[in-house]
Amino acid sequence: MNHSSNDTQTVKLKGEDVAKHNSNESCWVIVHGRAYDVTEFLPEHPGGPKIILKYAGKDATEEYSPIHPPDTLDKYLDKSKHLGEVDMATVEVEEKEEDPYEIERLERVKRMPILEQCYNLMDFEAVARRVMKKTAWAYYSSGADDEITMRDNHSAFHRIFFRPRILHDVENIDLSTTMLGTKVSIPFYVTATALGKLGNPEGEVVLTRGARKHNVIQMIPTLASCSFDEIVDAKEGDQVQWLQLYVNKDRAITKRIIEHAEKRGCKGLFITVDAPQLGRREKDMRSKFSDVGSNVQNTGGDNVDRSQGAARAISSFIDPSLSWKDIPWFLSVTKMPIILKGVQRVEDVIRAVQAGCHGVVLSNHGGRQLDTARSGIEILAEVMPELRRLGLQDQIEIYIDGGVRRATDIIKAVCLGAKGVGIGRPFLYAMSAYGLPGVDRAMQLLKDEMEMNMRLIGCNSVDQLGPEFLDTRTISMHATGVPPDTLALTVYDPLAGPAEQMSSKL
Amino acid sequence: MNHSSNDTQTVKLKGEDVAKHNSNESCWVIVHGRAYDVTEFLPEHPGGPKIILKYAGKDATEEYSPIHPPDTLDKYLDKSKHLGEVDMATVEVEEKEEDPYEIERLERVKRMPILEQCYNLMDFEAVARRVMKKTAWAYYSSGADDEITMRDNHSAFHRIFFRPRILHDVENIDLSTTMLGTKVSIPFYVTATALGKLGNPEGEVVLTRGARKHNVIQMIPTLASCSFDEIVDAKEGDQVQWLQLYVNKDRAITKRIIEHAEKRGCKGLFITVDAPQLGRREKDMRSKFSDVGSNVQNTGGDNVDRSQGAARAISSFIDPSLSWKDIPWFLSVTKMPIILKGVQRVEDVIRAVQAGCHGVVLSNHGGRQLDTARSGIEILAEVMPELRRLGLQDQIEIYIDGGVRRATDIIKAVCLGAKGVGIGRPFLYAMSAYGLPGVDRAMQLLKDEMEMNMRLIGCNSVDQLGPEFLDTRTISMHATGVPPDTLALTVYDPLAGPAEQMSSKL
Amino acid sequence: MNHSSNDTQTVKLKGEDVAKHNSNESCWVIVHGRAYDVTEFLPEHPGGPKIILKYAGKDATEEYSPIHPPDTLDKYLDKSKHLGEVDMATVEVEEKEEDPYEIERLERVKRMPILEQCYNLMDFEAVARRVMKKTAWAYYSSGADDEITMRDNHSAFHRIFFRPRILHDVENIDLSTTMLGTKVSIPFYVTATALGKLGNPEGEVVLTRGARKHNVIQMIPTLASCSFDEIVDAKEGDQVQWLQLYVNKDRAITKRIIEHAEKRGCKGLFITVDAPQLGRREKDMRSKFSDVGSNVQNTGGDNVDRSQGAARAISSFIDPSLSWKDIPWFLSVTKMPIILKGVQRVEDVIRAVQAGCHGVVLSNHGGRQLDTARSGIEILAEVMPELRRLGLQDQIEIYIDGGVRRATDIIKAVCLGAKGVGIGRPFLYAMSAYGLPGVDRAMQLLKDEMEMNMRLIGCNSVDQLGPEFLDTRTISMHATGVPPDTLALTVYDPLAGPAEQMSSKL
Amino acid sequence: MNHSSNDTQTVKLKGEDVAKHNSNESCWVIVHGRAYDVTEFLPEHPGGPKIILKYAGKDATEEYSPIHPPDTLDKYLDKSKHLGEVDMATVEVEEKEEDPYEIERLERVKRMPILEQCYNLMDFEAVARRVMKKTAWAYYSSGADDEITMRDNHSAFHRIFFRPRILHDVENIDLSTTMLGTKVSIPFYVTATALGKLGNPEGEVVLTRGARKHNVIQMIPTLASCSFDEIVDAKEGDQVQWLQLYVNKDRAITKRIIEHAEKRGCKGLFITVDAPQLGRREKDMRSKFSDVGSNVQNTGGDNVDRSQGAARAISSFIDPSLSWKDIPWFLSVTKMPIILKGVQRVEDVIRAVQAGCHGVVLSNHGGRQLDTARSGIEILAEVMPELRRLGLQDQIEIYIDGGVRRATDIIKAVCLGAKGVGIGRPFLYAMSAYGLPGVDRAMQLLKDEMEMNMRLIGCNSVDQLGPEFLDTRTISMHATGVPPDTLALTVYDPLAGPAEQMSSKL
Repeated sequence: MNHSSNDTQTVKLKGEDVAKHNSNESCWVIVHGRAYDVTEFLPEHPGGPKIILKYAGKDATEEYSPIHPPDTLDKYLDKSKHLGEVDMATVEVEEKEEDPYEIERLERVKRMPILEQCYNLMDFEAVARRVMKKTAWAYYSSGADDEITMRDNHSAFHRIFFRPRILHDVENIDLSTTMLGTKVSIPFYVTATALGKLGNPEGEVVLTRGARKHNVIQMIPTLASCSFDEIVDAKEGDQVQWLQLYVNKDRAITKRIIEHAEKRGCKGLFITVDAPQLGRREKDMRSKFSDVGSNVQNTGGDNVDRSQGAARAISSFIDPSLSWKDIPWFLSVTKMPIILKGVQRVEDVIRAVQAGCHGVVLSNHGGRQLDTARSGIEILAEVMPELRRLGLQDQIEIYIDGGVRRATDIIKAVCLGAKGVGIGRPFLYAMSAYGLPGVDRAMQLLKDEMEMNMRLIGCNSVDQLGPEFLDTRTISMHATGVPPDTLALTVYDPLAGPAEQMSSKL
Repeated sequence: MNHSSNDTQTVKLKGEDVAKHNSNESCWVIVHGRAYDVTEFLPEHPGGPKIILKYAGKDATEEYSPIHPPDTLDKYLDKSKHLGEVDMATVEVEEKEEDPYEIERLERVKRMPILEQCYNLMDFEAVARRVMKKTAWAYYSSGADDEITMRDNHSAFHRIFFRPRILHDVENIDLSTTMLGTKVSIPFYVTATALGKLGNPEGEVVLTRGARKHNVIQMIPTLASCSFDEIVDAKEGDQVQWLQLYVNKDRAITKRIIEHAEKRGCKGLFITVDAPQLGRREKDMRSKFSDVGSNVQNTGGDNVDRSQGAARAISSFIDPSLSWKDIPWFLSVTKMPIILKGVQRVEDVIRAVQAGCHGVVLSNHGGRQLDTARSGIEILAEVMPELRRLGLQDQIEIYIDGGVRRATDIIKAVCLGAKGVGIGRPFLYAMSAYGLPGVDRAMQLLKDEMEMNMRLIGCNSVDQLGPEFLDTRTISMHATGVPPDTLALTVYDPLAGPAEQMSSKL
Repeated sequence: MNHSSNDTQTVKLKGEDVAKHNSNESCWVIVHGRAYDVTEFLPEHPGGPKIILKYAGKDATEEYSPIHPPDTLDKYLDKSKHLGEVDMATVEVEEKEEDPYEIERLERVKRMPILEQCYNLMDFEAVARRVMKKTAWAYYSSGADDEITMRDNHSAFHRIFFRPRILHDVENIDLSTTMLGTKVSIPFYVTATALGKLGNPEGEVVLTRGARKHNVIQMIPTLASCSFDEIVDAKEGDQVQWLQLYVNKDRAITKRIIEHAEKRGCKGLFITVDAPQLGRREKDMRSKFSDVGSNVQNTGGDNVDRSQGAARAISSFIDPSLSWKDIPWFLSVTKMPIILKGVQRVEDVIRAVQAGCHGVVLSNHGGRQLDTARSGIEILAEVMPELRRLGLQDQIEIYIDGGVRRATDIIKAVCLGAKGVGIGRPFLYAMSAYGLPGVDRAMQLLKDEMEMNMRLIGCNSVDQLGPEFLDTRTISMHATGVPPDTLALTVYDPLAGPAEQMSSKL
Repeated sequence: MNHSSNDTQTVKLKGEDVAKHNSNESCWVIVHGRAYDVTEFLPEHPGGPKIILKYAGKDATEEYSPIHPPDTLDKYLDKSKHLGEVDMATVEVEEKEEDPYEIERLERVKRMPILEQCYNLMDFEAVARRVMKKTAWAYYSSGADDEITMRDNHSAFHRIFFRPRILHDVENIDLSTTMLGTKVSIPFYVTATALGKLGNPEGEVVLTRGARKHNVIQMIPTLASCSFDEIVDAKEGDQVQWLQLYVNKDRAITKRIIEHAEKRGCKGLFITVDAPQLGRREKDMRSKFSDVGSNVQNTGGDNVDRSQGAARAISSFIDPSLSWKDIPWFLSVTKMPIILKGVQRVEDVIRAVQAGCHGVVLSNHGGRQLDTARSGIEILAEVMPELRRLGLQDQIEIYIDGGVRRATDIIKAVCLGAKGVGIGRPFLYAMSAYGLPGVDRAMQLLKDEMEMNMRLIGCNSVDQLGPEFLDTRTISMHATGVPPDTLALTVYDPLAGPAEQMSSKL
């Protein structure tokens, strides 16, 4: 009964002992079968102490795992606080309250459509929405503020129409292209998305395998659920990966990450420049709201609730002071090409060229950062004519991401001048619903769609695509394409005509 | 039993005695525990005699209180008609008919979300709509005619998209700015809105306290539920207030109000110029309709119902002859800066400069006056380029109000050239639902949003904001952004295809 | 039992005798208590023989009355076929089948809102829709084809926004103006609409009385339910009426009508030029469909159903060959000013000036004729700048009609250059729901709205209105304002994602 | 019991014998009362072997018939595999599982509206949707990807408004025109659509008879359910037909088809150029999904489901290498005028002129091929001004198809410069719901509509139509007219405000 933290090295801890440390005065938690004393860490936890205290004295693995890479505790918690293994048989399995949503979800999982019923990328999203855990779905699917940008990312493609050519021999179609020197089979890459284990217990390595199978590049996220090395270890043969980088306030850490990535073979460094602070995503915040907040006193602004969803919890290290004057340093510490991810206006593309960057991704971070920002495809329509006017179009590679769901979207981007497009959420949804086969089928569907649509616009290969195949006159007519203002609609009482008399009055 | 009006000075009146005076021949009413003889006042009542007669011989406090400042009876009813205190224990408490809406409302109040579940300003509106009394909600939420302008005020912001810059050091963000010489913490002020006690029994002083806490300016409304002095008394330290003024037909009264306000420390005089007559707000009128109208004879136009909601009842004193030639007089009677509230086209902004005004508020009165008027943000997009062309942009401070719900809305207004924005209804809703903590949280949310969004567009301070951060090409494309014509939709029968045969025919 | 048609002059006919003539071999019908032998008339009936045969041997008054002016039988049926009075006590009252719609309608009539609950013109439409007979509602409310023009007529006004001026003394507002030399109290007139008795048993004279009360002009329709003289007889004092004219193939008839109208004091001749053939209104046609069509053989185009609603039945006399070369003749036969009603492009306005016409009504016939025609207000925005460019703006009076529901609509039209607007359906709906008091209130509401809105845009009188008070940049952006394609939507299956497995498969 | 395939020539096969050959080792099927050994053919079947194996040993006639012309087995299966007649009385009639959709459909068929209740072309679609078999409806009604182009085809017409002229004598209306030298009664033709027997057991000959009756041209589809000769045999008198051609990889086959068509009297050769590969139509694919796919292993892309609906199954012969250099060959092998069907930009129209083609059809294949391609009417608005600028407008006949549902649509196309329009689906729906009388009525309705609408725009004959009768300023404003993105909407969770507390918490 009296285990000191020393003898936990040799004897397994009992669940009942851990259970006693269930307050902010002494707070132990179990993760992956080992106990940790996090009492002193509580105030430093980026996600706030409350979320930990919920698991004080208990097994926190299920909630901990997707949002912390496996090496987190080693990195951030002093060894003296690692209390050693727990005899999990002695840990009381908590009777979970019956969550009616969860019961229905498990029913929906049983009735899941089989994979072959998915005919397009939206279908994976439809299935994932039905079978994912509520909080995971909320994290993946949410966007900033009113989610206008998030939705406009896709609908912007529908403001571009095709001008296909006919009677061009399209028997043979070659979808391949080159990205930063790497030959790929189709002009998309798997862009970085955080917390892959929320959707699939294996996490980002599933995407690695899918990318390998279809010969496309995977961009490894800083905020992966898997560790960087796990993801690199999962690659095969000459498979190419890129690194997405949130720049740490401590540049030594950043330098270590970059050098390690280069050593492990990464072929591109994508520095995120649209997220000096990670966005407020209210759907995500609402889904996190639970008993955590229920005893907060109404004392106003000083006690603003800090449980702002996964995004805020995991991103406090990001350096908001990152600026153009840091670019030479990045160029000095790596030979990897440097690409700025999140550029949103032509002035900054030109500046990126001048700064010696090798590429930019025109992106609004999947609509998760600044709402009513413009979509990547729309920015592209602004950028390319100006680059061509200045003769800069070949000095930098332009990518876009956001809202790509159809091969026609890819073709439109390439026609306008992009080297390729990043696709994120759709593969997460495919992975969450169906694992690797889902990712595989999603990629194959894009290839099938693209081969067909290349034929239908009359082009054999990616280099034949150009702006003459598009009618883009209305791409910037936001007024019309603006997605509905859902919140405003829910609070608005429509006008109504005169009410009928109550019959009792007659 | 035989109380003359004289001995009511010393002996409390009995409820049964008051109850006898229940007709238009002798009409007494009880307000805040005192009885008043309003028989002679009936025909003069701005809201019409019927609404008073409903309470003849009864306690009218609940309905009276929110729409009459406390000094009303002293000001407008001769002392001889003040009958003195009533022994309220003797007043029969009226059995109210069970109002099913009210019963449901009280249920909804019990299930109110806690404050921390409100993540944006729309959320307060959503809660207020569920928990406010029906007539109060109708008064606050209604707009003119088809409420197209009221809704367009917010949606106009969605016709402006951002062009954020990247790689600008945004570690430190300063939201502060200066309005008419006063330093404030963020570029919004609490604009004047009428009848605060409809939403909260304390009325406008709640907003005074919230504004103090967040160091923003409150504009005191002429049509407040609290008296002007109560609102000024509620301020603390060097807190700054402005006065919103409806100009009285009797300029002596207006002069007295202005001089008093200046003496009490008001730092700005906002003269409302968009309301020579207060608007018809049909939702409000419908909510007021009750048994008042039910025995009206169908005799046509001569007997038009005068019970047109709170707005008309309280505004009959406003002078519709106010014109540009009155401006010199205002400049002569006060040293406060003079700002015209409700300017709607560039010609009038230029004229305001020429007339020596210190500012204008581009506003359509929250969509409560002229329907299909343009939103403040849209007028701003017309005004600023022309002012700059004429070199007048620094000779006047430009404000806008209407539809501001997000920090991005504030940022867009400031980018276009506004010194700041007025916010009205959202704070009323926050106050109605949650009192001061609601107002506090609403303001804090705007600060949190604005700090983040300043980072995301790449600006450290308000003075860095400019039109280059916006894409405003479609701001004036009304055709597309026009909110749906609700009434027209409710009366339109959609076309339908051929009907099925009745089975009996077979 | 053996009544010859001769002795019916003196002895009343018995119902049982009439009842025997119930086939196309001998077809008698009773109308207003008198019997008629229409056997030989059957093939000539513009509405087809079937609809008469339905009443063969029976009392047809109820269906006959609204769609035939009282002098119809005298004019079109030879005296020898007038069989004389019927003893109505002997006519078997037909047990009507219980029509569930009719039962519900009568319930709705009991619960009708009282008149004072109507706050705008849409409200009358909302009530009328609930309390009118189904076929009457269908006739009034229907438009051509997909009813896009009918709906766009109103929504076009919402593509125009106001630019009100401020600080203009608006204490006194004068709404009066002059139309074709007649002083009127407000710039609208009651435009011609057919078959007033469908909505109210008194018919068009109700509108005459309403117009008198409010000092506006009534345009008398050719296709009135009341006779022309009844409508003229209903006017009082110096009340002014105009005549709307469908030109008959037989010009002698037309001449007689014009001369008679002029003699009876009509002050304007409005020649309808947008209806060489009366429109197909499918809602109306569907509502007429009943057992009439149920035994039609499927033999294809040769036997196309002729029961095409009221419009077609009553309009076969209209001359489709009417052309510009007829205008001099009209000018020669009357001193009344001649106005072309239904002009739809600027070229034809100019031609009307050249032809010596005194005015035009820019109109698409309430959306009842050519679908996807432009609204009057939009045509006006095309017409006036061109007229001014040519210096013709004062040589002709321009009116518009269609979609006017708000005083703001009237103001917009006058700002753009119209002398006034015609209003039709709203008064029909007011009359159908509430009779004369409804018409009275509808007109008073427009006056109340207009007085207020004149104040709000800063104008004292109609002559101050001009295009500078409007922002019309998007009036012609049809693409955006096009009302939804209801029929197409009802036949379209929205795409859907993958279906769930049937649970039986698991 | 031991029938060799030889003696089946004289003795009828028994059902039980056929039933034994029910696997991929020996697979017999019955079609139209005759048995066939398709064991060796299984891997070659364009629709995949699975769909055949479903009927192994059984009667496949019902599913086989609509999607294979009657001469298919003769052409593609060696005579030795024709096993001869089956005694159908001995074939076990399979008890079909009760399909609830089918039961409801049969109920709907009983309650079908009678033909006279159809007042426009949409009505036939509404009825067909209710009474057609699910898979047939899916095949006819589906389009490519998100069906944006399919829906835009019709809504594009609503982005064009009329500018009718008045006072033009329109007593006599002549709808006739000339197409490729043939006089027709109205400017539309019946365009080619595949698989007519899905909707009506008689197939395309029904359309032949309808076209005859109304003196319009029928274009015979390559992928008809009837054989080419059956369709030609069905014509009467001097009736004119055209041939729609999918070009076979084997040009000898194509040449044979062309020569045969010319010999049989076809007067135009319409070469489809927008379908080098037939489109993915997901609704169709989903409707085909059944137990066919249910045991597919999740092994990813290598095993992509091949059951992609009817379109893919029947089109594998089409030559994707067809190009401009083939045109001279076509000109050399036939004297029929050559028209390219599916041209989508002005450059290719000009090239068609240069190549010596006699016409083009501006078409996107009914929205079934490339999604977000532009509608024919919109391409026409691009093409004609450029042709006129180059003086080429008379060197080629321009047709459009897609989305035509109203006579106003036809008039708009002709005003813009088209010789006529092709109409496909509406006649299929009319035929599916009502057979020949349906087709007849549909055509008659178009004539009735067109006669009326010619009057209403003030034109007597087709040659008077011109662009001055249209307002086309917004035809290309896609942003606004883009049909809703149905799939995206189904997967999007609208934002919601704060949730109510569970009452249990109180």
